[in-house]
Amino acid sequence: MSETTNINELGEFGLIRKLTSKFERFNGSTMVGIGDDAAVVNQEEGVMLVSTDMLTEGVHFDMMYAPLKHLGYKAITVNLSDIVAMNGQPKQVLVSIAVSSRFTVEALEELYEGIRAACNNYKVDLIGGDTTTSLSGLTISVTVLGVAPAAKVVRRNGAQKGDLLIVTGDLGGAYMGLQVLEREKLVFREAPGAQPELEGYDYILERQLKPEPRVDIVGQFEEMNLVPTAMIDISDGLASEIFHICSESQVGVKLYEDKIPIDQQTYDTARDFNLDPTLCALSGGEDYELLFTLPQASYDAIKDLPNFTVIGYMTDKSEGYELITKDGKQVPLQAQGWDSFTTK
Amino acid sequence: MSETTNINELGEFGLIRKLTSKFERFNGSTMVGIGDDAAVVNQEEGVMLVSTDMLTEGVHFDMMYAPLKHLGYKAITVNLSDIVAMNGQPKQVLVSIAVSSRFTVEALEELYEGIRAACNNYKVDLIGGDTTTSLSGLTISVTVLGVAPAAKVVRRNGAQKGDLLIVTGDLGGAYMGLQVLEREKLVFREAPGAQPELEGYDYILERQLKPEPRVDIVGQFEEMNLVPTAMIDISDGLASEIFHICSESQVGVKLYEDKIPIDQQTYDTARDFNLDPTLCALSGGEDYELLFTLPQASYDAIKDLPNFTVIGYMTDKSEGYELITKDGKQVPLQAQGWDSFTTK
Repeated sequence: MSETTNINELGEFGLIRKLTSKFERFNGSTMVGIGDDAAVVNQEEGVMLVSTDMLTEGVHFDMMYAPLKHLGYKAITVNLSDIVAMNGQPKQVLVSIAVSSRFTVEALEELYEGIRAACNNYKVDLIGGDTTTSLSGLTISVTVLGVAPAAKVVRRNGAQKGDLLIVTGDLGGAYMGLQVLEREKLVFREAPGAQPELEGYDYILERQLKPEPRVDIVGQFEEMNLVPTAMIDISDGLASEIFHICSESQVGVKLYEDKIPIDQQTYDTARDFNLDPTLCALSGGEDYELLFTLPQASYDAIKDLPNFTVIGYMTDKSEGYELITKDGKQVPLQAQGWDSFTTK
Repeated sequence: MSETTNINELGEFGLIRKLTSKFERFNGSTMVGIGDDAAVVNQEEGVMLVSTDMLTEGVHFDMMYAPLKHLGYKAITVNLSDIVAMNGQPKQVLVSIAVSSRFTVEALEELYEGIRAACNNYKVDLIGGDTTTSLSGLTISVTVLGVAPAAKVVRRNGAQKGDLLIVTGDLGGAYMGLQVLEREKLVFREAPGAQPELEGYDYILERQLKPEPRVDIVGQFEEMNLVPTAMIDISDGLASEIFHICSESQVGVKLYEDKIPIDQQTYDTARDFNLDPTLCALSGGEDYELLFTLPQASYDAIKDLPNFTVIGYMTDKSEGYELITKDGKQVPLQAQGWDSFTTK
């Protein structure tokens, strides 16, 4: 980077203008965006979905291996995923940041480049936010607004006994991407000149650094005229999300280990790291795939779709949460702690 | 405080439940609140107003003299004020906090007591948020949703040449309250056992610690069938807010010093502190009163209302921003820096 500008040089309003001037507007419902006391949204049909998330430096991200552009992108997409998990279409976002003076204007521009890339990819409007200073570190807060027809909103509490449990895409990749980044960080600390060895890990690194919300699946449901009985996005790991659906819906579950979709790169890297690939999928998190339930009658409609994998079915609450292992044993499903991750 | 609980003991979901379980729901438009991937708002009439704000410890508040309950209250009310400034009614809030582990569960409960008091006072529903950890300090992010008939939304850009410039309530009190608190903090630092001398400052301390949004004024406009041509809330000081309206509306202004409403306690305290009361009103900020413009034809309707003070009028852009001082001089209106505050 050649020249750097201190964030105090521009003043709050100058900084906001600099960071947000390139953003386009995609949605007719956005009447007033940034620049007044509040944004104005004219959403004439359906209900509005609202979700918010806060990310703090050192807890949710590490500036050492998360480039600011990726961080901005991810801050937006993980929030869009929450709207998708209600079967809605994300439309607007508000982004607030608190930064210490060690951040330059150029660094913040990079962050907003990532935010803008996500907004462009998903046709979402940036309509507000706050830009302020902090005594230390970077905190990002994102609020997302979305829309859905009232009858198509999917909550976590509608799963019925006998429903199929289905997941999109594959799992565990984001977690393994993080392991690779953590390892390279250690190497770099010991030998600061060392080049990171990231070749051959493209897919899992992308899963970790640049997760994509499954907006496409909402469209697919619409086309097929399918409405899941319950749905959640996988931010914390498959097991924990299954527990949320079960406890909100008052049902039990049977989950089949051999059905859990795991990409070959995820599988191989887990093995190299001496980790159990299934545990990475169950407890790894950050894949931002969708987990949902459908009545068994929908099986024919979805069985050949490449995006969907049936991984189990819902049972009576009294049957509890069971994992059927690859060798046919039935064991209680657990959200594994991080220390039980290593293969024995 | 007797027993304290570490925030990690409850886990994220336990903590959220503990903090939010006592909140009531006031609005029919709130369909789904906390507990799913997103909240669901069914707002069938009017347009939706959205605003968000971020507060960081050491920058926006000082734990030394802002009790957590007041901080929670203020975090909400200053956001409600942004909806009011668009001539809307606030309906829902989302609150995210990032806290370091030095905060106990009991401290956070106090913060949420304040948030709840504000929600109760203004009949606003808490519908979401995020509760997470930070490496240091406390950061609070609030997003507020409100509603207004589309034709009654008031922006900053509609003021016309000849319009009256009007302010609600009185100004400078919040700033003087802060000066009193800062003085007592210094005294306390030098003599930790000393009792703070806060008697006789009730009004200005309340203005600083517990600001109230002028939701009542939105009701009054409604009753009188008045719609301001431009409006903003006074968070940064009168002068700076006037500049916003002038620059967005492309007009000039004549402001009369002797018309600026200043409470006696504010005035007297400013004098005691060797500060110019007018400058405190012009640049002090945080009063959260409303500043708005109305056509001259509305003068008879508002001239006897105790809440409203006409402080000037809008001129042609070419006439610039002028302050008519008490002794009849015309000087350029400036948003004073903090160092020019002392009376000469």
